[in-house]
Amino acid sequence: LSSPLNIGIAGLGTVGTGVLRLLTEKPALLAERSGRRLQVTAVAARDRHRDRGIAIAGYRWHDDPVGLARDPGVDVVVELIGGSDGPARALCEAAIAAGKPVVTANKALLALHGTALALAAEAKGLSLGFEAAVAGGIPIVKALREGLAANSFTRVFGILNGTCNYILTQMQETRRDFNAVLAEAQSLGYAEADPSFDVDGVDAAHKLTLLTSLAFNCPVDFAAVYVEGIRHVSALDIAYADDLGYRIKLLAIARQTPHGIEQRVQPCMIDADSPIAHVDGVFNAVVAEGDFVDRTMFSGRGAGAGPTASAVVADLLDIAAGRKAPTFGVPATALRPLAHSPMQRHVGPYYVRLMVSDRPGVIADVAAVLRDQKISIESLLQRGRAAPGQAVPVVMITHEAEEAAMVRALSQIGKLSAVMEPPRMIRIEQL
Amino acid sequence: LSSPLNIGIAGLGTVGTGVLRLLTEKPALLAERSGRRLQVTAVAARDRHRDRGIAIAGYRWHDDPVGLARDPGVDVVVELIGGSDGPARALCEAAIAAGKPVVTANKALLALHGTALALAAEAKGLSLGFEAAVAGGIPIVKALREGLAANSFTRVFGILNGTCNYILTQMQETRRDFNAVLAEAQSLGYAEADPSFDVDGVDAAHKLTLLTSLAFNCPVDFAAVYVEGIRHVSALDIAYADDLGYRIKLLAIARQTPHGIEQRVQPCMIDADSPIAHVDGVFNAVVAEGDFVDRTMFSGRGAGAGPTASAVVADLLDIAAGRKAPTFGVPATALRPLAHSPMQRHVGPYYVRLMVSDRPGVIADVAAVLRDQKISIESLLQRGRAAPGQAVPVVMITHEAEEAAMVRALSQIGKLSAVMEPPRMIRIEQL
Repeated sequence: LSSPLNIGIAGLGTVGTGVLRLLTEKPALLAERSGRRLQVTAVAARDRHRDRGIAIAGYRWHDDPVGLARDPGVDVVVELIGGSDGPARALCEAAIAAGKPVVTANKALLALHGTALALAAEAKGLSLGFEAAVAGGIPIVKALREGLAANSFTRVFGILNGTCNYILTQMQETRRDFNAVLAEAQSLGYAEADPSFDVDGVDAAHKLTLLTSLAFNCPVDFAAVYVEGIRHVSALDIAYADDLGYRIKLLAIARQTPHGIEQRVQPCMIDADSPIAHVDGVFNAVVAEGDFVDRTMFSGRGAGAGPTASAVVADLLDIAAGRKAPTFGVPATALRPLAHSPMQRHVGPYYVRLMVSDRPGVIADVAAVLRDQKISIESLLQRGRAAPGQAVPVVMITHEAEEAAMVRALSQIGKLSAVMEPPRMIRIEQL
Repeated sequence: LSSPLNIGIAGLGTVGTGVLRLLTEKPALLAERSGRRLQVTAVAARDRHRDRGIAIAGYRWHDDPVGLARDPGVDVVVELIGGSDGPARALCEAAIAAGKPVVTANKALLALHGTALALAAEAKGLSLGFEAAVAGGIPIVKALREGLAANSFTRVFGILNGTCNYILTQMQETRRDFNAVLAEAQSLGYAEADPSFDVDGVDAAHKLTLLTSLAFNCPVDFAAVYVEGIRHVSALDIAYADDLGYRIKLLAIARQTPHGIEQRVQPCMIDADSPIAHVDGVFNAVVAEGDFVDRTMFSGRGAGAGPTASAVVADLLDIAAGRKAPTFGVPATALRPLAHSPMQRHVGPYYVRLMVSDRPGVIADVAAVLRDQKISIESLLQRGRAAPGQAVPVVMITHEAEEAAMVRALSQIGKLSAVMEPPRMIRIEQL
């Protein structure tokens, strides 16, 4: 065996503790698989005396993560602090400045500063590993960067937020509304007290930013992602989706279009028979479509101490074994900005639900608006009759239409006197 | 860019032509992703003049693949000849002897001689890439060897033969019998004129042998795989599986048991709601269960020129970029033979179908045999009544039982006078 790889870990929350546990539980296996012993020499965290259920007295303690990065007894820095700026960013910059490779699970940091960090790391020949930042234990970063690297990608998409997928799965199974299921998810620990980062799609958008760079070899561009969360998905829409042979999932999608790369996070309807429709609960999945490989799907747990530790240590094993790849699949200096196709230019079929007063002529008025926007209706459903003055749902599936036309149409439809609530729209993603 | 990587390709069938096409279609992308230009300099095949739809005049021609291995203008050898011995093996041995890394799609060769070839290659510090040998375009070899390498695996299983999965999917969808669907698959080119390699499970067993070595770091041991094909799966069993909430899939399974590693290829019933039950048609899938990552699944096309070329070129990109990993995840010198648990010691639930004459006391006799073998029945179905002298199906699901006891029980049940056909048994794989 070569000399041991000395590891410094900053951040000892659930994931940091999981990484420590993995590294201390099976040193022989890891040494055999990488050719070097992986040993933790130093740690940094906020509270030295918190009980983490694991002994940390044997590691050199740093109150300041930047001190850990500069510790001469540390060969590689694991950043598990979190947050797009502040100590996490300072730590990564200090590690690279000190000539040390970095492994991080921090999607927010990389979605905002990934290109700069990659440039800095690669200028010194250092790895910047972030397998744990996307889809937890699923080795999708390595798959896109190496395993599928012979392909030009046309679309990469996935279920990247376990909290949203858990909530939507529960809504599907129990037919309850978003707020009830969210409250339950919070009580079970599947959703944060402040859930907005997850349910408003921000977390999935961070991850999508990284997948987009890997697949299309462009700089990270979080601002280019169109983000829509799941708060407006109703039990009624879930039920209609089911009737129509769809499931509603929060998808993060990067797609090559004639107008450039489209990046969007949004609740989508997908064919209930498709494999990704069966990825339920806290599980994540990523589908990569390449010109030679066709469609491949990767699924597994997207979060949690074990899966995330599995991904962090995979990056450490690569570093120990001397395996290097450019951060985003091509050298950071070769990442080329691509045209971004704005959401208004998105083209696809739509699900539209209206709540209308049940009187003759309503459908004719709605159809006329759609006709004027050149949107054609594939199917229309009106079930049951309402009591006078009550709203009745009308559900339509359109053929492919442009988002801008759909937005104009829905605005006009919303103004019709018979339409009693703002129209609801969910995009249909074709697989 | 560093100096180009000079590639020699032996075997210009569908896959070889696909690799040539990929390498010539996008040289810039591949160079950017690996840091070197990948250029084909020499080829070897049987017939120089066959029209392959692609120009090969620019490459040095070798009638003898061993000559290609020794060509000083070749840095790396791609073996796409096939077959477990003969020219394919001679080529790989010659390449390694000449100090050149090898990339192969040949599962038969590696299932039988993989350890010896890995020892020879690694002794010279050479890579032996075989991503294309298992599950086509799915980068499962890299996932087990690197992406999930922090895990101890408890079970790895998958759908590894597209022909069988296509036939079983068609049987499921059309309720026709095996022979009718096989004939159709042959006419469509999804099954060979001599289909036994596929439908008798041999091809899946070759691939399982490689997955087992990767997951459990043991030498390849094809002889230790219990192999059962799909010829005996009937339309009736497919229909019962459906009624009972199962799907029948040909699974290849490697599992850690208290008695050692169990390796088996066999038609299994799996929960119809499980993600792998939705992997249909010619698609393949692999599920890896690790102690930290929990369950991950990878699916995609398991064969064909495009997906296989994607995998072959991924291995070439690793070689071009200087990324190395031991062939089977740990150095070949460290592969440790593991105890093999024989099929007789397999424990799991079983589906059993009997064709009995419909008269009082039959069930009691069957139940008594099972009781004597300590096998308990979870459910029993007897639908419809037969005309006198006609057989009626009786279907049972057992609780967990040992294979040896089940074999004894079925032998005795088969001898009961009321049992009119040999009993049919399909193992249930719990997910």
